[in-house]
Amino acid sequence: MSKGIISRKENYSQWYNELVVKAGLADNSAVRGCMVIKPYGYAIWEKMRDRLDQMFKETGHENAYFPLFIPKSFFSREASHVEGFAKECAVVTHYRLKNSPDGKGIVVDDDARLEEELIVRPTSETIIWNTYRDWIQSYRDLPILINQWANVVRWEMRTRLFLRTAEFLWQEGHTAHATRDEAMEETERMINVYASFAEQYMGIPVIRGIKTANERFAGALETYCIEAMMQDGKALQAGTSHFLGQNFARAFDVKFATREGTLDYVWATSWGVSTRLMGALIMAHSDDNGLVLPPKLAPIHVVIVPIYQKQEQLPALEEKILPLKRELEAKGLTVKFDDRDTVKPGFKFAEHELRGIPVRIAVGPRDMENGTVEIARRDTLEKNVYPMNEAVGVVTRLMDEIQENIYRKALDFRSSNTCQTDSYDEFKELLERGGFIMAHWDGSTETENRIKEETKATIRCIPFDAPEEEGKCILTGKPSKRRVLFARAY
Amino acid sequence: MSKGIISRKENYSQWYNELVVKAGLADNSAVRGCMVIKPYGYAIWEKMRDRLDQMFKETGHENAYFPLFIPKSFFSREASHVEGFAKECAVVTHYRLKNSPDGKGIVVDDDARLEEELIVRPTSETIIWNTYRDWIQSYRDLPILINQWANVVRWEMRTRLFLRTAEFLWQEGHTAHATRDEAMEETERMINVYASFAEQYMGIPVIRGIKTANERFAGALETYCIEAMMQDGKALQAGTSHFLGQNFARAFDVKFATREGTLDYVWATSWGVSTRLMGALIMAHSDDNGLVLPPKLAPIHVVIVPIYQKQEQLPALEEKILPLKRELEAKGLTVKFDDRDTVKPGFKFAEHELRGIPVRIAVGPRDMENGTVEIARRDTLEKNVYPMNEAVGVVTRLMDEIQENIYRKALDFRSSNTCQTDSYDEFKELLERGGFIMAHWDGSTETENRIKEETKATIRCIPFDAPEEEGKCILTGKPSKRRVLFARAY
Repeated sequence: MSKGIISRKENYSQWYNELVVKAGLADNSAVRGCMVIKPYGYAIWEKMRDRLDQMFKETGHENAYFPLFIPKSFFSREASHVEGFAKECAVVTHYRLKNSPDGKGIVVDDDARLEEELIVRPTSETIIWNTYRDWIQSYRDLPILINQWANVVRWEMRTRLFLRTAEFLWQEGHTAHATRDEAMEETERMINVYASFAEQYMGIPVIRGIKTANERFAGALETYCIEAMMQDGKALQAGTSHFLGQNFARAFDVKFATREGTLDYVWATSWGVSTRLMGALIMAHSDDNGLVLPPKLAPIHVVIVPIYQKQEQLPALEEKILPLKRELEAKGLTVKFDDRDTVKPGFKFAEHELRGIPVRIAVGPRDMENGTVEIARRDTLEKNVYPMNEAVGVVTRLMDEIQENIYRKALDFRSSNTCQTDSYDEFKELLERGGFIMAHWDGSTETENRIKEETKATIRCIPFDAPEEEGKCILTGKPSKRRVLFARAY
Repeated sequence: MSKGIISRKENYSQWYNELVVKAGLADNSAVRGCMVIKPYGYAIWEKMRDRLDQMFKETGHENAYFPLFIPKSFFSREASHVEGFAKECAVVTHYRLKNSPDGKGIVVDDDARLEEELIVRPTSETIIWNTYRDWIQSYRDLPILINQWANVVRWEMRTRLFLRTAEFLWQEGHTAHATRDEAMEETERMINVYASFAEQYMGIPVIRGIKTANERFAGALETYCIEAMMQDGKALQAGTSHFLGQNFARAFDVKFATREGTLDYVWATSWGVSTRLMGALIMAHSDDNGLVLPPKLAPIHVVIVPIYQKQEQLPALEEKILPLKRELEAKGLTVKFDDRDTVKPGFKFAEHELRGIPVRIAVGPRDMENGTVEIARRDTLEKNVYPMNEAVGVVTRLMDEIQENIYRKALDFRSSNTCQTDSYDEFKELLERGGFIMAHWDGSTETENRIKEETKATIRCIPFDAPEEEGKCILTGKPSKRRVLFARAY
């Protein structure tokens, strides 16, 4: 098959869009800003979801499900939350349609207007904290450690598949605690879970840090984040964990009897990752031939392609291939035997490269004579011939090697595209080349905004591991105690 | 703990509502008709979902995800579908809120009115077939075997937790085929998958059959269903599989090039089960002490309760209990060690009964002396003392026995509450007692409707296995070829 995708160098943004569509991951739908996640894309998301779900459960969380709709008035309860979330959203005003009086189609029934409009959840803090009020009376009811897998809607004006869509899939953790310390610990625990997932499963190194006040979640006292670098040098926020203090407990009047017998507001956190991670996964590793997937998240680990001229050669090949397939499956690998007779091997090779299947095995007549197979790895495109009886060992070793290699490659890329500067002119120059810049900042929102206006760069985070270092703000020259991470971002 | 639920005999409907809430399965929310599925309820749903998902994949299906919103005009395309679905639904008319001019709260921004209203999906045939048009050109693109796990909304006026809620969770399969026969086969395959799941996992015997024209899915040529009997003798439709013919392909202009080179409309099926199954599960097996769960769907299989007077006795008990717990877990069982020191064993016993944990193990000082444990099964409430070293064997055997027993019990109940009659007067009498009635019907919608008006009984289905038998319609006396299944239903 012809891959027909533009190269990253020519147009990175177009490369991404074409890749998502041509690799069969997602498509735009008939509904503005909403995507269709196609089976192959959904299979990758399922792998991510299942692994994250296990990590949440291992850290003591349970799943639950809260309503899709939120009464409009709930959003007004938490002052900063309403500013951040209630504005661009889908509003349900009616609950019935009727046949059009002119007999053509259907129209909204004006008699079925809701007393109070319902908002399709953009995030669920409000409805969940309204529920927690009934669940929490005493310290014995705490902590509550709940996660929800759900769809949410934010009416984005400019959308891009996976990266920014009106509807997206995500998980949102909402926890309730008796003390400030416990809630802070939870906030940290979950940003670390996200970081481990990104690095160990997605193969993407991330910077852990704290958001500036400006970039904080609406309603949070502190937002922790992980930031990843894409191949164009831009940053992508890959997960956030929020310390909400007692804001939502106050807004929804959720108090508990402490161990000491006093009444106090409950402490809260929330944390989430979304199908946006799909965008990060695609952009971090893929190349001009298509997707490159980490084996730990690949729906298919190995594809086996038989090479033959005449149909009658196939049974002999199958006799060698099917036992190999079973052996690989016994190792826990998902193996596809691509015996389609409607397309040529070259077409299959290109298609499997486009779809990022980590390892391809080809078996042809010469292999039959020599007792060999050809094994190709997707990340480096290297291929080698091995004795058939070594194939299982080679492939299982390759799974680890590929997982390791794409992480290493992404880490090297990030290292060579991260620099620091103390000059605003150089800062602007460096930004044009792309990448992360560690620079001093005076801590004011005003400065942050001016830099953003002038350069389109934002402070991605104040990294947890940024060392104390006296310096001067690159814009204002005012004193600064540590460098922060600047970048242009998705 | 005091269970505080009314008995089934006193008030079956109230018993159900109280049980759902008190066992921690679900709660009503602040949004009319929408429920909160609590962690324990959601854990059961996850077990059901995961098992069904595996069965779908084993029969060749893949998951995908389509938009939550459907343009209003899509519903008008399929004539009978619009009548069935587009009427009572949530309508999104605006995409923005703004601060109220009076400074109090937020209001809908009239400048942000959608050109075309969006409907929150009540089911997804329309948006999916609109998408399939782009996916299908030739017979080589077929079949498409896709399933979606999603939330849907139907604006129900009278709602009940799990059984009928405005928003519910479900899966909807949507397949596309080149031939009528293949689509019919798929329709049958999936009703059989549902039946196997209901019987083998939920422990609920079901009648498989065909719906009458009246009860058919809006837009289907044929609807297959499975019908289960609840403990009050009423029927509950537990799953449906629809043969949609070429209706949706025509409505959305989905044609394909056949192998012979002609153009034809694509054949369709759709099939679904929902969180309604939770209602069926609860009502089929539970008793006046609380839930009774089939081991295959129980989130916790075994609870171990230590019995002691003084705190200092606990360590010695733990020394016996923890190895037992590990041994049971090694058998694949989920085991909870309930070592709370804030409540008494009696309270714990009642709570675990309420929550339907299949097996309870109690270990006290006397057991320590004798090397024994007390094992109680939830379904029969029997308890016996066994030597500690037999405990693992007893418990694993009990898992199978309980699964088998609750199915057998439900089957016996259904048998003794199913009868046949040829007299309309007796029919009405039998209905008052509850249960299924096999009776002759003349095949007309008019008769069906009259019986429904007069008795509140509906034709649940024409069972697949109903033998041919000449008879006369119980209402009209007109000729009939086989008995159909009548019952009052949820």
